[in-house]
Amino acid sequence: MELFAVPDLPEIREGDDLAAMIADRVDLREDDVVCVASTVVSKAEGRTADLDDFPPGPRATEIARNLEEISGDEKDPRFAQAVLENCTDVVMAEPFILTEAPFGHVSVNAGIDRSNVPDHDLLLLPERPSESAGHVHESLPESPPVLVTDTAGRSFRHGQRALTIGWAGMPASRDWRGETDRDGHELQVTVQSVVDELAGAANLVSGEGDGGDPVVIVRDWEFGDHDGSDNLFREMRGDFVRQALRVWEFDQ
Amino acid sequence: MELFAVPDLPEIREGDDLAAMIADRVDLREDDVVCVASTVVSKAEGRTADLDDFPPGPRATEIARNLEEISGDEKDPRFAQAVLENCTDVVMAEPFILTEAPFGHVSVNAGIDRSNVPDHDLLLLPERPSESAGHVHESLPESPPVLVTDTAGRSFRHGQRALTIGWAGMPASRDWRGETDRDGHELQVTVQSVVDELAGAANLVSGEGDGGDPVVIVRDWEFGDHDGSDNLFREMRGDFVRQALRVWEFDQ
Repeated sequence: MELFAVPDLPEIREGDDLAAMIADRVDLREDDVVCVASTVVSKAEGRTADLDDFPPGPRATEIARNLEEISGDEKDPRFAQAVLENCTDVVMAEPFILTEAPFGHVSVNAGIDRSNVPDHDLLLLPERPSESAGHVHESLPESPPVLVTDTAGRSFRHGQRALTIGWAGMPASRDWRGETDRDGHELQVTVQSVVDELAGAANLVSGEGDGGDPVVIVRDWEFGDHDGSDNLFREMRGDFVRQALRVWEFDQ
Repeated sequence: MELFAVPDLPEIREGDDLAAMIADRVDLREDDVVCVASTVVSKAEGRTADLDDFPPGPRATEIARNLEEISGDEKDPRFAQAVLENCTDVVMAEPFILTEAPFGHVSVNAGIDRSNVPDHDLLLLPERPSESAGHVHESLPESPPVLVTDTAGRSFRHGQRALTIGWAGMPASRDWRGETDRDGHELQVTVQSVVDELAGAANLVSGEGDGGDPVVIVRDWEFGDHDGSDNLFREMRGDFVRQALRVWEFDQ
């Protein structure tokens, strides 16, 4: 398996044809996996916004005030309003705003990015990342699988790692159920989230900041002869961590 | 960046010299990253056990009974006892046993593996995975960085992905604090857990089961000119998810 960044991509602007820009720079193969940072998908789709677009309502004002008390830093209620307007559920509002996006992804601040935007205050996540991935997938020569990636923190461990929020042309996970190990035992790992592992691998190559390369190609990797699953986002029901966070926030 | 599995490794047995077995099969470079599945580290270190080694005390008996009621499946109180004896903290005991290992890693069932063991019932995690990684790191020609990897589920998302439980020869994370994006904004991602992203990348190549290759080499990847951090495992204090899970379990 080999990974390389798509070279010399310019700053992406609204209306840019990502597929064409990638195809101009790389001879793609059908079995490549094209990993695209959600920031450039959002830029191409014009998902920018400004704080003034979000006059804060009472809930946003209260959330911002609480976060100010907790953090001691100034919090802009317009940003809290932007978060509320870009999620379908607030998993918790303290010590930071953890939200569920309409497409099922749980993230901090509805995944709204306050860096990475030259001419605006805010960059919102793509509205339907798997559809965005699908458009790029269908437009690329050889139609390789396409992942839209983001980064997130996690429980129990410091630091952030990349994950996938939208995908097309391949399943999200390998389903190993029923397969056995060398000794013939049923495997302990049953569902492997390959799109998240691919996103993490791509993030090792793309980097961030000045030298950031937002599109990475994974070559000579095979999904292999396994069942696939697209069931990546947990439902509220059956997600004990999410239930626990609700109880916990309520108790504060 | 390129990844490949170390070919033709035999079944690992207690006392095997992993470093020698890897060096016999790959011409290593100083800047390779050697990713070793914790299962083979445990086997080489003789971390096998049997259920009869763990006569269940009252707490293990109660935990197993509760899990039986929840799941409807038979639960062996000896296994619950093995979990209790191999952790320093039970984060939650239902709907499964979530534990903290002595070295700080939070995992289900103290990471005890019931598959992957030919002649015994149980395979325990390495006692000090970063020390295990250090031994391999120092014994390998060119002394490349070494990661000891495992797999785990996560909140909000279905499926498992690989992560790192021990490391030597490189920091666990890249610290981007103070670095800026293309537009000169401070980066939103501040600490990138590269050892976990490397573990995930390796897991895409190693696979599981019959064709499993437990050691993968990452070549032509650079940590780069960043600050590093080895602070991977969150402390109980400041881990709101862990605090929430305690409250939640208590409320059941």
